[in-house]
Amino acid sequence: GFAKVDHHRALRTGYPEVVFCQGKTHEQCEKIFQALEKHNDNILMTRAEPDLFARLQKIDDRLVYSELGRTITLEAKPREKTGSVLIISAGTADIPVAEEAAVTAAISGANVERLYDCGVAGIHRLLAQNEKIQKARCIVAVAGMEGALPSVVGGLAPCPVIAVPTSVGYGSHLNGLAPLFTMLNSCAPNITVVNIDNGFGAGFSSAMINKGVNHEA
Amino acid sequence: GFAKVDHHRALRTGYPEVVFCQGKTHEQCEKIFQALEKHNDNILMTRAEPDLFARLQKIDDRLVYSELGRTITLEAKPREKTGSVLIISAGTADIPVAEEAAVTAAISGANVERLYDCGVAGIHRLLAQNEKIQKARCIVAVAGMEGALPSVVGGLAPCPVIAVPTSVGYGSHLNGLAPLFTMLNSCAPNITVVNIDNGFGAGFSSAMINKGVNHEA
Amino acid sequence: GFAKVDHHRALRTGYPEVVFCQGKTHEQCEKIFQALEKHNDNILMTRAEPDLFARLQKIDDRLVYSELGRTITLEAKPREKTGSVLIISAGTADIPVAEEAAVTAAISGANVERLYDCGVAGIHRLLAQNEKIQKARCIVAVAGMEGALPSVVGGLAPCPVIAVPTSVGYGSHLNGLAPLFTMLNSCAPNITVVNIDNGFGAGFSSAMINKGVNHEA
Amino acid sequence: GFAKVDHHRALRTGYPEVVFCQGKTHEQCEKIFQALEKHNDNILMTRAEPDLFARLQKIDDRLVYSELGRTITLEAKPREKTGSVLIISAGTADIPVAEEAAVTAAISGANVERLYDCGVAGIHRLLAQNEKIQKARCIVAVAGMEGALPSVVGGLAPCPVIAVPTSVGYGSHLNGLAPLFTMLNSCAPNITVVNIDNGFGAGFSSAMINKGVNHEA
Amino acid sequence: GFAKVDHHRALRTGYPEVVFCQGKTHEQCEKIFQALEKHNDNILMTRAEPDLFARLQKIDDRLVYSELGRTITLEAKPREKTGSVLIISAGTADIPVAEEAAVTAAISGANVERLYDCGVAGIHRLLAQNEKIQKARCIVAVAGMEGALPSVVGGLAPCPVIAVPTSVGYGSHLNGLAPLFTMLNSCAPNITVVNIDNGFGAGFSSAMINKGVNHEA
Amino acid sequence: GFAKVDHHRALRTGYPEVVFCQGKTHEQCEKIFQALEKHNDNILMTRAEPDLFARLQKIDDRLVYSELGRTITLEAKPREKTGSVLIISAGTADIPVAEEAAVTAAISGANVERLYDCGVAGIHRLLAQNEKIQKARCIVAVAGMEGALPSVVGGLAPCPVIAVPTSVGYGSHLNGLAPLFTMLNSCAPNITVVNIDNGFGAGFSSAMINKGVNHEA
Amino acid sequence: GFAKVDHHRALRTGYPEVVFCQGKTHEQCEKIFQALEKHNDNILMTRAEPDLFARLQKIDDRLVYSELGRTITLEAKPREKTGSVLIISAGTADIPVAEEAAVTAAISGANVERLYDCGVAGIHRLLAQNEKIQKARCIVAVAGMEGALPSVVGGLAPCPVIAVPTSVGYGSHLNGLAPLFTMLNSCAPNITVVNIDNGFGAGFSSAMINKGVNHEA
Amino acid sequence: GFAKVDHHRALRTGYPEVVFCQGKTHEQCEKIFQALEKHNDNILMTRAEPDLFARLQKIDDRLVYSELGRTITLEAKPREKTGSVLIISAGTADIPVAEEAAVTAAISGANVERLYDCGVAGIHRLLAQNEKIQKARCIVAVAGMEGALPSVVGGLAPCPVIAVPTSVGYGSHLNGLAPLFTMLNSCAPNITVVNIDNGFGAGFSSAMINKGVNHEA
Ligand SMILES: Nc1ncnc2c1ncn2[C@@H]1O[C@H](COP(=O)(O)O)[C@@H](O)[C@H]1O
Ligand SMILES: Nc1ncnc2c1ncn2[C@@H]1O[C@H](COP(=O)(O)O)[C@@H](O)[C@H]1O
Ligand SMILES: Nc1ncnc2c1ncn2[C@@H]1O[C@H](COP(=O)(O)O)[C@@H](O)[C@H]1O
Ligand SMILES: Nc1ncnc2c1ncn2[C@@H]1O[C@H](COP(=O)(O)O)[C@@H](O)[C@H]1O
Ligand SMILES: [Mg+2]
Ligand SMILES: [Mg+2]
Ligand SMILES: [Mg+2]
Ligand SMILES: [Mg+2]
Ligand SMILES: [Mg+2]
Ligand SMILES: [Mg+2]
Ligand SMILES: [Mg+2]
Ligand SMILES: [Mg+2]
Repeated sequence: GFAKVDHHRALRTGYPEVVFCQGKTHEQCEKIFQALEKHNDNILMTRAEPDLFARLQKIDDRLVYSELGRTITLEAKPREKTGSVLIISAGTADIPVAEEAAVTAAISGANVERLYDCGVAGIHRLLAQNEKIQKARCIVAVAGMEGALPSVVGGLAPCPVIAVPTSVGYGSHLNGLAPLFTMLNSCAPNITVVNIDNGFGAGFSSAMINKGVNHEA
Repeated sequence: GFAKVDHHRALRTGYPEVVFCQGKTHEQCEKIFQALEKHNDNILMTRAEPDLFARLQKIDDRLVYSELGRTITLEAKPREKTGSVLIISAGTADIPVAEEAAVTAAISGANVERLYDCGVAGIHRLLAQNEKIQKARCIVAVAGMEGALPSVVGGLAPCPVIAVPTSVGYGSHLNGLAPLFTMLNSCAPNITVVNIDNGFGAGFSSAMINKGVNHEA
Repeated sequence: GFAKVDHHRALRTGYPEVVFCQGKTHEQCEKIFQALEKHNDNILMTRAEPDLFARLQKIDDRLVYSELGRTITLEAKPREKTGSVLIISAGTADIPVAEEAAVTAAISGANVERLYDCGVAGIHRLLAQNEKIQKARCIVAVAGMEGALPSVVGGLAPCPVIAVPTSVGYGSHLNGLAPLFTMLNSCAPNITVVNIDNGFGAGFSSAMINKGVNHEA
Repeated sequence: GFAKVDHHRALRTGYPEVVFCQGKTHEQCEKIFQALEKHNDNILMTRAEPDLFARLQKIDDRLVYSELGRTITLEAKPREKTGSVLIISAGTADIPVAEEAAVTAAISGANVERLYDCGVAGIHRLLAQNEKIQKARCIVAVAGMEGALPSVVGGLAPCPVIAVPTSVGYGSHLNGLAPLFTMLNSCAPNITVVNIDNGFGAGFSSAMINKGVNHEA
Repeated sequence: GFAKVDHHRALRTGYPEVVFCQGKTHEQCEKIFQALEKHNDNILMTRAEPDLFARLQKIDDRLVYSELGRTITLEAKPREKTGSVLIISAGTADIPVAEEAAVTAAISGANVERLYDCGVAGIHRLLAQNEKIQKARCIVAVAGMEGALPSVVGGLAPCPVIAVPTSVGYGSHLNGLAPLFTMLNSCAPNITVVNIDNGFGAGFSSAMINKGVNHEA
Repeated sequence: GFAKVDHHRALRTGYPEVVFCQGKTHEQCEKIFQALEKHNDNILMTRAEPDLFARLQKIDDRLVYSELGRTITLEAKPREKTGSVLIISAGTADIPVAEEAAVTAAISGANVERLYDCGVAGIHRLLAQNEKIQKARCIVAVAGMEGALPSVVGGLAPCPVIAVPTSVGYGSHLNGLAPLFTMLNSCAPNITVVNIDNGFGAGFSSAMINKGVNHEA
Repeated sequence: GFAKVDHHRALRTGYPEVVFCQGKTHEQCEKIFQALEKHNDNILMTRAEPDLFARLQKIDDRLVYSELGRTITLEAKPREKTGSVLIISAGTADIPVAEEAAVTAAISGANVERLYDCGVAGIHRLLAQNEKIQKARCIVAVAGMEGALPSVVGGLAPCPVIAVPTSVGYGSHLNGLAPLFTMLNSCAPNITVVNIDNGFGAGFSSAMINKGVNHEA
Repeated sequence: GFAKVDHHRALRTGYPEVVFCQGKTHEQCEKIFQALEKHNDNILMTRAEPDLFARLQKIDDRLVYSELGRTITLEAKPREKTGSVLIISAGTADIPVAEEAAVTAAISGANVERLYDCGVAGIHRLLAQNEKIQKARCIVAVAGMEGALPSVVGGLAPCPVIAVPTSVGYGSHLNGLAPLFTMLNSCAPNITVVNIDNGFGAGFSSAMINKGVNHEA
């Protein structure tokens, strides 16, 4: 076949196998899914259109689709959910990226909580939810436009914050470069950043941080 | 002479004559100052080094120097100060730009109040000063690093906010382009922006807004 | 619901509630509109396509559409119009952005005057209208291509000028970055700038400046 | 004073107070240090030149200087060191940034291990140290030039990897933007990124991840 | 005609005539093909859609289409294949560019071997194929995303490596600029680079290097 | 020698030989000058520091230095001056570039007229000189900051206008890229542009246009 | 109407009235054409699609369409053609821009000669036409890809060369910024540059240079 | 020590050990040199200042310095020189980069020929040397300014051409990005590119190509 599916990774890490559907034909996605399904209980497909889900559901009716997050998931043997990952987003239009992060964190073993539409131009909305911020083990902060949200969250939170810039904006927004640079230049010391619109990477890393690696029993 | 000094502008607008000293020799600055002094009561020289002040003070001992703001001012017939312009800045290193704005607004006729070291990563510092924010006629918000301050201020303030990005930062800060783009993409609707480090422009415009132009008596 | 509508803002500021329709589905826009309508007399929807208007008009026939400015407005209890905001634009293709500014300023309480097709390559057109420039309390100057218009206007006007770069141009225009940088680097001291194509922000700020905030009665 | 020192932060978070010395005069640094010293046992000063250390050491001889990492530290009541943070760097010239991360992680409570000069063009050097990679709770991967190191490390490591691009390079390196973009676009899902040369941010976040926040006893 | 076909080049160099179909109408492509066919045995058409192939095949049924590489080839008098060019690619989505290189190298006289889906985040896949890397005379390394593959290959290979960045990625990938800069900044000394998606240039140069020019018999 | 001096060019074109001194040692400049002097009557050296002039003057006392334009010229057999090239500049700091253009145009055979300190923020200064604009055969318009001057001049002038952006500015000026893009996007159809600070190129081309090439006697 | 047509310009300058159709509706173009037609003998419409021509031809059957150059022209009283403008282009795909320049120069009064498909990678094609280059009064050199053509032409030609970068290319071509920067940095002193794809500006300026302005009879 | 010197590389590849001195202290360079000297006959140190040479020469008087190329070389057991690598450069100021390439190619086993000061604005200089171009096995083409040289050379040469952009230029040259993009977009199919000013990489790769790898005896 055209793609060397790397079956060992899932075993090695205990995380689901992942398929990035964007830029692949539905036929390619189906083939990769079928190859993975033989060896994996948990599969996550990102950037998946409704049509692809309709097609794959006919093959395997255990599949679940998230319309907001554009993900297809198979959770045949779900990991036990632990801890608390909090997903905070700024605007309505950032929700798809936030949901990609949420679904990824959940299938990777985290309890997930959501706090949406909390942009910094109305700071009281965020401050009103301070309790949730204090309880999280890791926070994913998603924002387009000027991307200022993670800086404020970073200042309030006692835990690591993963900042996700989105491509939501126009003009000098530069398809997400503006909030990306905002986040990289944040004054808060507990912020790290992933690529524009990369909800998957933020969700995956937040689940790892939430669980803790090599922590003694 | 090499520079056509435009004497009518000051008369026309009622604001001080301004000299931008950066990129000019001390000799050029002195000549321009002497030409202006003959026809103007109020003069503002920006981006002026201490040495230049030492030189000009020998000519005219009414001159005043602001070390922080790097300005030389002559206020022979000060305008009456009215209203309230509030200058808010994020970090210690942003103070020179904030002071350039403050001095400019003051000589242009505004009562000026300052609120420094109020970065968004410690949002409580800003919230503690909400009263001052509510009373201002115009706010100048100065920030380097990620430049998130004006967005938060814009959401709190009932008046126009002029955002000034500074060149304070490193790496993907791009000498101030990062906070510039942050500010241009702000979600708050009452924010307008000036060039990186342009405290002068912000101070001047804030004074105009503070005073009101063509308001009926 | 997916969006925390912030009902307090309108009360707090006395300005209309605003919905940015771009990037939202018609269904989302309708839901947000219905939520707002319950608590607000004046609503402004920007970047709205004709189809969206057709849909919303069936729900509320008081709605008005501006084809040029792509806005939907509800003005159930119009604010009294005061002062004078002047909207100047450079080319025919800049008119949509200019109209977005004009509609926003008007619903926010300003008397609005328009001066279109006044690009600097035919400077006599602008000079012929100097009287209007002298009378305004705030000017919004909209330009694509090289974006030189605000500099010339700034030199003529005794009031604050808000410069709006547009994405109209090609080649090294960089989708509006060229006029954006032109405007940020203007020699005129009374110019502040908003994001590319952000007629809304310019209109809103100009109305605030036009009205004056915290001016004593 | 010119800087509102935020004494509550250290209490709130249990981490040292931090001073970013770059862009501050020695006099300013001394004043800030003296203000902090009164209320804090542990202080970290980053981007500090040898001269500044010489000056401060006269005030407080408990201070320690790291020549490689350009840090001054006061650890009057050191936190207990736990877990394992592994710092991997690519080239000799990246060591200052790697050491800034190492010192920061250590003073923030982490056991720190170092693996330097492991660039990907000689991949055997990295593979030879796989055991250390498998044992870490969090890895900081520092690289200039093309910045490929974190991608390879991310594929080998079972824990979160924080990537730090450095400004070491020339030509199309763009002062670190090249490795920054490399890292943001990494195929490995367990990578997050901080600003160019930001060893401090990476060290701080790695210590938080290493310790675990809100983990039940 | 509109295009001066340069018949001497093929004679001069011994390589096929090449047509870059992108941005030309099918009619233009057909005319150019017919002009070339009269004087050339070997013709390579790149960036050719299936429809164009269908049209040209009616004129000349010796034509061969590569669906993956989007090439149309006529090899009436194939050059003898010599040596070994190895094409390595990182992800599934990079295959079209890799195949463009492979077809070009082959018609230009090289034995071609392929090694696909060998991204650096799973470095074992590449290391498992070290034997092939050691035997090649020239390697073409194709990668999108972060573009780290050529650096690792360059460190392993004893021969010249031509790096080809692809436009496969999103966000700060900048349509391929990110991996382009990664490759230009590589630490490995045996790497040279071609334009984003330029499989043709890489294939052509690799064939020249594989054959050797001006080597004595 | 290290530099192949191309003696035929001067004969071929009738223009002076030119040496670009920036980035060359004084020793290299002296050697090149001595080689040129043997075969040329007219020599222009650009970007020349006063020290270099002092050194060369000892060799040849016919040399003339322009302090403002940083040029050294030898005009042993001056070309007859014809027509009229008008050099217009915006600010005091743009004068060095304007003078480089002026000296180049003059030694290349043009009558040169100057109009300095005519920035568009004070448009009346330019309009007052309309007569000179109408009489010119070619205009060179030099501007830093926002670079709007050529657009206004282009609209007034009946002749070709060569726009020269300068590196005078700060912040988002991007060392001259801002006015460069302004000029390239100008609405006036009679404007062409040269590189940032390239007074030489503008002066040379304006002299050619002023004289006319291949015009019948 | 929405557009202030500036009837005086044509009279003032003796050139045709010009309409830039891109970004205007067919209805807007028709209205502008009808307004112009009343006062002008010669009209040039650029960036015009075939459909627009079909529509306007019904109104005025004297109109002529150039399919290659995408121009509509009315030449009711053609200017007498004088001198010689030479249009040189590099690749087949650059022809539309070259033809826009050619049509513009012709209707503006120049004899126009064409030399197409003369890219520098086959330098003999250009050298074979040296005679034409020597006879021209002004040359327009159009090139996409690397944009090297004008540099070579500039070295051969005794007259001014106007360089036009085109958006033809891919990858690091950056939609024409690559050849634009190539041309601005040219070593040849007789080159000036216009915006990417701006055949109109090049054609207009070349016609002005060809004719000579303010040359004595 | 701070640097893991990778002794196997030289054995593996048969090329000299290389030290990149830029950004290292003289002390670091000396230590690395001493470590290498024990196991290597041939050593190349690039970007080395005269002072460093003076220091190292005292340790080992077999060292040779190239003032133009800024290299220090030890060739205790020189490789036999074979084939022909031709180094062509455009301007006087590009010579340091060209010499770095020449020295590298020579110590790596190639006969090296030089052709300097052959910029494309005087194309006859290049054409006069066509014979040398036809005989080379690999050409290194070095150019700053617009970087057009490799395109012309690529069209003339029957062998691979490695293009090296230099940082020589000003304004929109962008420190070498302009010629870099020119070269990446070249129409000639036999061109590959290295980083700005990377004479070393070009010299190394050209020597590999010149020798041929895995060519049967
Ligand atoms: N939304 C996403 N953004 C970036 N990377 C992703 C995303 N979703 C999945 N991936 C990565 O893509 C890999 C699968 O890529 P592929 O083999 O091309 O399907 C996974 O292992 C993930 O590391
Ligand atoms: N800090 C500043 N940044 C930008 N513009 C300034 C600044 N200070 C003064 N100016 C402007 O520069 C003009 C004076 O420039 P000049 O004639 O060159 O001294 C003033 O009228 C102001 O508009
Ligand atoms: N190397 C560094 N890079 C970025 N931020 C830093 C660095 N070192 C310290 N900081 C941050 O700077 C803050 C102190 O800044 P300041 O108050 O200006 O001294 C600390 O709280 C850290 O968050
Ligand atoms: N200020 C300038 N900017 C750009 N190019 C210049 C300048 N002055 C001279 N030149 C060019 O540099 C060439 C001489 O370069 P060189 O042989 O390196 O001294 C002349 O033929 C001019 O084309
Ligand atoms: Mg909202
Ligand atoms: Mg602080
Ligand atoms: Mg118009
Ligand atoms: Mg090393
Ligand atoms: Mg894969
Ligand atoms: Mg001035
Ligand atoms: Mg061709
Ligand atoms: Mg030369």
